[in-house]
Order: sequence, then structure tokens, then C-alpha cells
Amino acid sequence: MDLVVGIDIGGTKTKIGLVDKSGNTLESTFYRTKEYPELDGYLIKMAQTIHQLKSKIPNRSNLIGIGIGAPNASSKKGTIENAANLPWKGSVPFVDQLKSHIDVPIQLMNDASAAALGEMLFGNAKGMKDFIVITLGTGLGSGIVVNGQLVEGYDGFAGELGHFDLTFGDGRYTGLGVDGGLEAYVSATGLKRTIMYMLSKYMEPSRFRGIAYNDLHGEDITQAAEEGDLIAIKAFEYTSKILGHALANFVTFTQPEAIFLLGGLTSSGKWILDTTKSYMDAHLLDIYKGKVKLLSSGMHGKNAAILGAASLIWQKVK
Amino acid sequence: MDLVVGIDIGGTKTKIGLVDKSGNTLESTFYRTKEYPELDGYLIKMAQTIHQLKSKIPNRSNLIGIGIGAPNASSKKGTIENAANLPWKGSVPFVDQLKSHIDVPIQLMNDASAAALGEMLFGNAKGMKDFIVITLGTGLGSGIVVNGQLVEGYDGFAGELGHFDLTFGDGRYTGLGVDGGLEAYVSATGLKRTIMYMLSKYMEPSRFRGIAYNDLHGEDITQAAEEGDLIAIKAFEYTSKILGHALANFVTFTQPEAIFLLGGLTSSGKWILDTTKSYMDAHLLDIYKGKVKLLSSGMHGKNAAILGAASLIWQKVK
Repeated sequence: MDLVVGIDIGGTKTKIGLVDKSGNTLESTFYRTKEYPELDGYLIKMAQTIHQLKSKIPNRSNLIGIGIGAPNASSKKGTIENAANLPWKGSVPFVDQLKSHIDVPIQLMNDASAAALGEMLFGNAKGMKDFIVITLGTGLGSGIVVNGQLVEGYDGFAGELGHFDLTFGDGRYTGLGVDGGLEAYVSATGLKRTIMYMLSKYMEPSRFRGIAYNDLHGEDITQAAEEGDLIAIKAFEYTSKILGHALANFVTFTQPEAIFLLGGLTSSGKWILDTTKSYMDAHLLDIYKGKVKLLSSGMHGKNAAILGAASLIWQKVK
Repeated sequence: MDLVVGIDIGGTKTKIGLVDKSGNTLESTFYRTKEYPELDGYLIKMAQTIHQLKSKIPNRSNLIGIGIGAPNASSKKGTIENAANLPWKGSVPFVDQLKSHIDVPIQLMNDASAAALGEMLFGNAKGMKDFIVITLGTGLGSGIVVNGQLVEGYDGFAGELGHFDLTFGDGRYTGLGVDGGLEAYVSATGLKRTIMYMLSKYMEPSRFRGIAYNDLHGEDITQAAEEGDLIAIKAFEYTSKILGHALANFVTFTQPEAIFLLGGLTSSGKWILDTTKSYMDAHLLDIYKGKVKLLSSGMHGKNAAILGAASLIWQKVK
């Protein structure tokens, strides 16, 4: 049986899984990224983990490649460059280095772009030629598909919509110092920042008046909204309004058939998806109205990040 | 000799030319669009004009197709839909109708997208896979190329960056009612509006205090800037700042190798191109710095619109 290794490199966890042609994750595990501050030790651990997973598959299996999703990854150069949340600094020739440990085809990609391929192969974008995936986690990532192909850009850094500047000055700063960048508003962190903003703006009572910023969690905000906490409700409304407006703008670029939302924040169902859709529709140009679907990812409940990474190899085979 | 008809449908003029494989316009002419308010009369005039041009070519020539650039055109449906500056209202099945007059392959496209193909085949984007063309005329048009292919979008309306909303409210309105749309600032009309804004903001003397909005022309603003008129200089600075910032944002989408500026406004050389480049560079994310060229179109002085339209057919043959 042919198998692909899917790897998702995050600031906290490195997730590794074995994925078959139909998108089933047969085995998976993770280790903590920060326990391996030296690249070489990290890569040795990665190779070991892959061999351990493979040994668990009873039948004869054939490893046809490794797909990796990571932040600040260049698909064209095989490098990870200055990723704020990863321990290795500068431009890391990741693919070349890993190849010296395991000699199979390896494809590295921006994690959100990998998610877009996963959506196309195994999720809700099957058969679509033009769509966008927005991943809402700690930050905001994006993967863009045009004419059935991933948009990689000149040297593989396309799709950084989290750093799209919405305000032209006088906005919130992103981790990269972009003034008014989308992810400063629309992401788990953005939502926390919006709770602070709403506490500054309104006088209504709220459970969040008793919780420090560092102790805030996304799930608590959803729960508070469910219970009628006005500050939480206003924070979701504000987030959805900005996201909906931004998405309507993005449609003028590639006119996608659908935009998919993926990630923790979107699990708060009606608080994000429905209101974002209203705001997007309200801002679409007439030529686009009624033609752009806003959909939930088909990867929820699956190992989305691992599947997306594995798609980098499977799409070449299929 | 194989020839392609290139047609540019504008609100004022309809330009028609015969273009050979190397991008030479052998014959060209125009007629006034508004003289033919009925579509059928317009199409009869178009067919007659094509036959007249063709009869001027002494050698035996073979018409292999017609490429048409027009505002609000859907490449995928062959329609022109609700174009504000054209006399025919609603959704016009342009390609089908023209085919009943001349039965050759016909390809219709958004005029700025046609310009992007022209740049790739006959201009300064030869060999590039990822680039954007911005046309600065009465409005602002855009054509986007990714992986060597034009971005058409779900039903052929991609690339409407003139209506990309920069301000998220409280901006200038475009002709389509978009609040803060890019072309309300960056276009020949946008520049005129900026002269009004600068007259409201500053007290400095300026030749423009004696000229009504309706009597303002782009060339006069360039000349005034050359002569040191502060209002004109500030207007160019303001325009370049907004365009540069917007372009830096657009890079996060498709990471183009180059962005080309085309059209009347860009002929004002240093007043737009150089300053826009500085502002764009200042706003680029680190991962993009030094990698994005801002270039003047290679189509200046040629029949850019006719060549772009003809490219729609030539790119399929080549």
C-alpha cells in the first residue's frame, strides 16, 4: 500500500501522520517542537518518528513521499524563513536537510496553502477550480487556488493575507509589525484583542472584566456569547464584520467560487460563519453577488493539518 | 499570412486593428461607440470595419480569430454585463451576437486582463509566470497572471482591483458606489478628485484655483507639477502613496515577480512611477522585499489596447 507522510510544523506541536490515497490518516502522533531547538536534533526526531509510525502498519507499505506544512515556508525554495514561532532562525534549507535523513520526495509548503490542497483533494472543495481557504488559528493563514492550481507566487510566498493591511495606518499591529493587518483582528489572538477593545469601549458588565488577557481563551468567549455576555457578542460581531468586508474585497482579486473557513475560531458556528457571510454579501460588487459561497471546511474533525500536508504529495500522484 | 483582429471597446472609441503573430498592428482604425446605441447596428459597423481593414492588406491574409477587450466582460460567458460607460444595458451576449456576423473564433475579456496577456506576449512580461498589470485610465483596471495563466475567476470577472475598498468606510465613492475603492483615488479621475481635495486642505496658491473640475485634464496636472505647483505636486504624492501601499498589499495575495503600470497617468513618469515604488517598497513584508519589480508597461507607444485584445487569440495559437 502506498502511503504519504503528512507533517504539520507548528510553534507548539509537530504533528506527523501516515495518509493513504483516500485521505485516511492510518497512524499519527506528535512531539513538542520547542524541545528541539537545534535543527539537526529536530530532524533526527522527525525521521525516527516516521520510522516508528511506519513500523506500526502491519501490511507491506511503500512510502512515496513526505509533505510538510509550515509557517513562512517557500514551496519553491524548500526553505523556512524567519518563522516567528519556530526555534530556528534565518533561512533554513529544510527540505535539503531532511533529505539527508530520509531520501524520498519531499514537498514543503506554507501551512495554509497545504490546507487548501487538502480541501481540494479530501474536503469540500472537490471539483472546484477557484477557491480560497482561510485558516483561523493563533494567526490567520490563507491558501489560494486559481485555475485548479495553488497560487505559489514568484518564489513561493504567496497567500499571506493575514498581513493584508486593512486600515492604511492607525490599526492594530501584527506580529510582523504590519499596521492594520487582518490577523490582528481576525484570529484567536485578534478576538482576544477585540475583547480588550470592547472592554475599553463599553461599560456593560461582562465576565471578561474579571479575566486577564493572558488567561483568555477562545472557547470561553464562545461560551460567554452563548450565555448572552454583551462584550463577547459585540466582539464576535466586530470580528465577523471585518472578516466579511475583507473577504468581499478579496473576491475582486481572483473571484473564487467559494471561500472556506477552517480552524478553532470557526468552530464557534453561528458566531462567525453566518454573520461573516451577511457582511461579505453586503459588500460584494453586483457582478459577484449570489456567486460566492462562504463554507465551513470539510476537514473539521479530521487531521486537517496532516491531511493538507500529505496532499502536497498526493496531488502530484493523482 | 495569419492575422488576428484586436478590438478594444471603450465608452468613447471602439478601436479595431489587424495584428500579426509578432505583435505588429498592420492596419487600425476606430469609430465612436456612442454613435451606435443599438447593439445590432454596432455589430454591423464592427463587421464592416473588419472587412474594410482586411481589404487593405495586399497579400493573401487569413483571419484566424477576433480578440475583444471590454469593460465588465466575462471571459467565460462571452457577455458584457451592466457596463456603466457602454450604451447597451443588462447582460449582452456579445460573442454569440458577433458570431452571427463573422463566424471565426471570438474571445472576449475584461480589457485590463487582455492588457496583461498583451504584456506577456508582446511587452515587458515575456517569460514571466506571475505578474499584475494595472491600467490607469478614466478608472483603474487590473489583469492578474498566476503560473503563466490569466486569473479569470469562477465566471470570468476576476481582477476588479479598481473596486478594492481601501478604507473600510468613509472613503471616496467609485462609479459603482464602492466606498473607498482604489480607482476613486488612483486613476485620471481620482487624480482630479485629489486636486479638489488638496484645494480644500491647503491654502497655497495654485493654477487650479482658477480651473473648474470639469475643465481639468491629467496632462495639465503633470505640467503644473513640472512647473512647481504645490497643489499638483501634493496630488501626485498622495496618489503615489495610496497606490504604493495598495500594491504592497496586493503582493500578499499572489506574490508577483513584477507589477506593470500602463495608461495615460503613468506617462507622467517620475510623478507616479518612482514615488509609487518607494511607497510600495516601504510597505512590503520582509519576505517580499527586493523581489517585486514595479515596471512601466512595454506597450507604451504601441496600440496597447488592440494588441492586448489580439493576444487573446494569439496566446492560444502560440
